[in-house]
Amino acid sequence: MSATRPEPTFDVVGIGNAIVDVMAPADDATIEALGMARGGMTLIDTDRAHELYAAMGPAKEISGGSAANTLAGLAGLGAKCVFIGQVADDQLGEVFAHDIRATGIRFDVAARPGDPPTARCLIFVSPDGQRTMNTYLGASQFLPAKALDEALIADASILYLEGYLWDPEEPRAAMKKAIAAAKVAGREVAFTLSDAFVIERHGDDFRALIDAGDIDILFANEVELRALTGDQDFEAGLAKLAPKVPTLVVTRSEKGAVGISGETRAQVLAEPIDHVVDTTGAGDMFAAGFLYARVKDMRLDQCLHAGAVCAREIISHYGARPEADLKALLAEKLG
Amino acid sequence: MSATRPEPTFDVVGIGNAIVDVMAPADDATIEALGMARGGMTLIDTDRAHELYAAMGPAKEISGGSAANTLAGLAGLGAKCVFIGQVADDQLGEVFAHDIRATGIRFDVAARPGDPPTARCLIFVSPDGQRTMNTYLGASQFLPAKALDEALIADASILYLEGYLWDPEEPRAAMKKAIAAAKVAGREVAFTLSDAFVIERHGDDFRALIDAGDIDILFANEVELRALTGDQDFEAGLAKLAPKVPTLVVTRSEKGAVGISGETRAQVLAEPIDHVVDTTGAGDMFAAGFLYARVKDMRLDQCLHAGAVCAREIISHYGARPEADLKALLAEKLG
Repeated sequence: MSATRPEPTFDVVGIGNAIVDVMAPADDATIEALGMARGGMTLIDTDRAHELYAAMGPAKEISGGSAANTLAGLAGLGAKCVFIGQVADDQLGEVFAHDIRATGIRFDVAARPGDPPTARCLIFVSPDGQRTMNTYLGASQFLPAKALDEALIADASILYLEGYLWDPEEPRAAMKKAIAAAKVAGREVAFTLSDAFVIERHGDDFRALIDAGDIDILFANEVELRALTGDQDFEAGLAKLAPKVPTLVVTRSEKGAVGISGETRAQVLAEPIDHVVDTTGAGDMFAAGFLYARVKDMRLDQCLHAGAVCAREIISHYGARPEADLKALLAEKLG
Repeated sequence: MSATRPEPTFDVVGIGNAIVDVMAPADDATIEALGMARGGMTLIDTDRAHELYAAMGPAKEISGGSAANTLAGLAGLGAKCVFIGQVADDQLGEVFAHDIRATGIRFDVAARPGDPPTARCLIFVSPDGQRTMNTYLGASQFLPAKALDEALIADASILYLEGYLWDPEEPRAAMKKAIAAAKVAGREVAFTLSDAFVIERHGDDFRALIDAGDIDILFANEVELRALTGDQDFEAGLAKLAPKVPTLVVTRSEKGAVGISGETRAQVLAEPIDHVVDTTGAGDMFAAGFLYARVKDMRLDQCLHAGAVCAREIISHYGARPEADLKALLAEKLG
């Protein structure tokens, strides 16, 4: 965002999985009986998807996908966004595309014909709101590098990348190309580590990106911070990672979040809530609030506060896409 | 339910449209701008479906269909049910079939290959909870009479029919066949008039069924009562229709409901509610509560009360399928 660069048309361009969430309540005994790791995210194949869906109660279908959720939050706040992700040419692909466009986000990637179908995430929601996710990636893992429009990447203040998408090969290549395009254009790159399993598999890649100065804003939760740094101690992990990224944001569920940007450290408590309905998308929506405030050049503590307000909205209802007027909510809380 | 008949395996077998609801909030200006009749139900073709979907905000997909909703409520209450309806062999068909089976309802009708796709209902929900429905019938209107298993019809206490499905030709033939099978087996036939437009088109059929004594329990709302009897006055309409059906039930939204069975007349007030979220499925869930109590041989006033309790649950949240434990709710209210 240097003064010599032209003013970008978009606030955030995000690259991520294009997923429809299939959500149903479940008790913990069911989650255990099905051999799922409560609270975790597991990639599943077609057979396992059929097995789990058959065991699932009556469900609701709501568009999801980590970066896509974040963009939906950003768009709800008034930011101008572009989403890049791959759906198949099928009914769930149509649902995903409709929902993302209906929030005012530009989405141009053509649906992929034939098999596999559009990605879905089977989410079992426990009575305490904890979500256990089983992701069938389907078409989403075939986002080709050629789907990227480098001029579009250059035309957004922030490039936002979802760590989940680093796992499959084609989107990884696409994301590397996007990072290069953003850097050449002098834009910021924001990255969310997504899940410890991604770090297990691609930690070296992530550390290399960080060491090369390719990531300007890094989002992690406590578990991911530990996985990336190898430090069991939270403060030790922060101390190791923070000097390597211009802005580090670590979310800590009900303990709130910490942000470190150069010499500035700030923290926020989680916004109080009576009843947690469904935690799906809490991290995604935190990122939405944070990035929105960032685009608006707010202070680090304000960015964290905006993140907490948006995260609270999403855990108060079913589904990972915002239902309330986030803009009004933020105006009320941050003034 | 004569004592000489064998005890049936099922409580209710229902025949209806197999529809997935696509629901989004909308303000009244949008509903007007799109030329929709607020609060009504309109059948739409493919082009209009595309037009309305494009104008719709981010949506949720939740299984629906009038009789299917009623069965989902009945199953939630503990009744043993069978659903007969037609989905296409596509993703939304899979969603519908999953959701109905996941509630414990038997559903054997094979998905129909090829076009048209599974039915969907685009529902615009106003801030006051009023729903405006636009139904694309798709595969649902091709339920063939051969999909009916007459032995199955004979093996349920009550055959429940949705008036909506009287409109397309093939399901109408299937329903006539089902009525005959139920009558031969000495079972009760319950019928919901569904919508005034159906009565406009098929009122003569309905009056003939009623005059022939084919309908044992008739569900109507005030508008439908007026359309069927031609009487503008509520009491005059009741007086005309009640002698022709063993049990007549007329729902009146926030004014509750009236039931007349022979010499017995009962009424119930609507259950109090703080905030109406979405009225979609209120009539369907009233029928669920009523029929459940009926199967349990409860008094007419108790049947009405059970209906009101179930209707209240459904209007307290988004979607026409119950979320709360209806059985516990009913036990608490009716003791």
